[in-house]
Amino acid sequence: MTPVVSFVGCSNSGKTTLLLKVVEELKRRGYRLAVIKHDSHGFDIDKPGKDSWRMTQAGSDVVVISSAEKMAVVKVHKEDMPLDQLVDMVGSWVDVVITEGYKGEDKPKIEVYRAGVSEKILCREKELLAMVTDKKTDMNIPQFAPDDENCASAVADIIVEKIINKPVEEDIRLTVDGKDINLKSFIKDAFIKTISGMVSTLHETENAKEIKINITIPR
Amino acid sequence: MTPVVSFVGCSNSGKTTLLLKVVEELKRRGYRLAVIKHDSHGFDIDKPGKDSWRMTQAGSDVVVISSAEKMAVVKVHKEDMPLDQLVDMVGSWVDVVITEGYKGEDKPKIEVYRAGVSEKILCREKELLAMVTDKKTDMNIPQFAPDDENCASAVADIIVEKIINKPVEEDIRLTVDGKDINLKSFIKDAFIKTISGMVSTLHETENAKEIKINITIPR
Repeated sequence: MTPVVSFVGCSNSGKTTLLLKVVEELKRRGYRLAVIKHDSHGFDIDKPGKDSWRMTQAGSDVVVISSAEKMAVVKVHKEDMPLDQLVDMVGSWVDVVITEGYKGEDKPKIEVYRAGVSEKILCREKELLAMVTDKKTDMNIPQFAPDDENCASAVADIIVEKIINKPVEEDIRLTVDGKDINLKSFIKDAFIKTISGMVSTLHETENAKEIKINITIPR
Repeated sequence: MTPVVSFVGCSNSGKTTLLLKVVEELKRRGYRLAVIKHDSHGFDIDKPGKDSWRMTQAGSDVVVISSAEKMAVVKVHKEDMPLDQLVDMVGSWVDVVITEGYKGEDKPKIEVYRAGVSEKILCREKELLAMVTDKKTDMNIPQFAPDDENCASAVADIIVEKIINKPVEEDIRLTVDGKDINLKSFIKDAFIKTISGMVSTLHETENAKEIKINITIPR
């Protein structure tokens, strides 16, 4: 799975402002990035009158518009999609996924805390890679002042070192009929060794780093 | 792979109008739908000032906004994504994918042809499930008049019968490091039998219809 880091903080703490600067900085260093933003208030990317809007109005659950310059998807649903599903969807296009929000998920985080604006610190020390705050805490993690001109660059350094360059671990995800299946560690190992062994016998797939298989079975 | 049908026709032939009516009709019958529209002129789903726009301006290659009601993805790129990749991305959410455009792809098609507006008929008979036209051709396929009030319903009937209810075929797609790998038929068979056999030994996966596996290997 593509590495993920989450920017969290109360509203008005300055999360988005920091995130934009860090995105610019990582882009400048040549990384491909995805940002996933959780919006609890809803949003209106899809304008009345546009084709995409007319298609969803007519009853299409999903509308995709694709051109040589960009691609857009709008999906209407009745409940939030799990973060891991979103990361799966976009992960293969990028080197790192940065989320805004998703503080309840089990991902490494950077918290933005501003005294007087933020009600409280949201994360525990062990969840955090760093903190961006105008009031130093006694947590034993890197802490940067938001108005320091090197702040975004320092946060980018940490994301490169701890997230993007983290050694890849051997892993398998199995989904059967849309359900994630939990595998015990020796079963994981058997699946990985068997499948990657089979794949390695094929032409030009000797050093596979990522194997994806979709099987359809008539019943 | 989720079944796909393409609506094709010259500009101003009435493709979009027909598509909207057919989407309404299929929705009324309870199917979950995705529409994929190819837009050769570009489009502006992403408005200046909006967060998603600011993120792509800052350099994010992909922006996802997700809420309990809907999810939107905007991906900036330098070349069109292949249709099969788009279908893979959204297929598991729906029963059928309808494309507008993509006449060069190897999918069953419905052509909209209007005499005097359309320059010529785009498809050959063997590609077509049906034609919607104000001037009957001598092709041996169902043909409906666009101003017939039962036109959309007749087209929906054909999509249900020939596309949605088509028996599923056993199939496997293998992607290694982002590249689709072509498998000979006996290798396909070996992969499908081995993997579905392994999966069938797990708990609650006895009658799997769709198996997805993602493996990450450190090198």
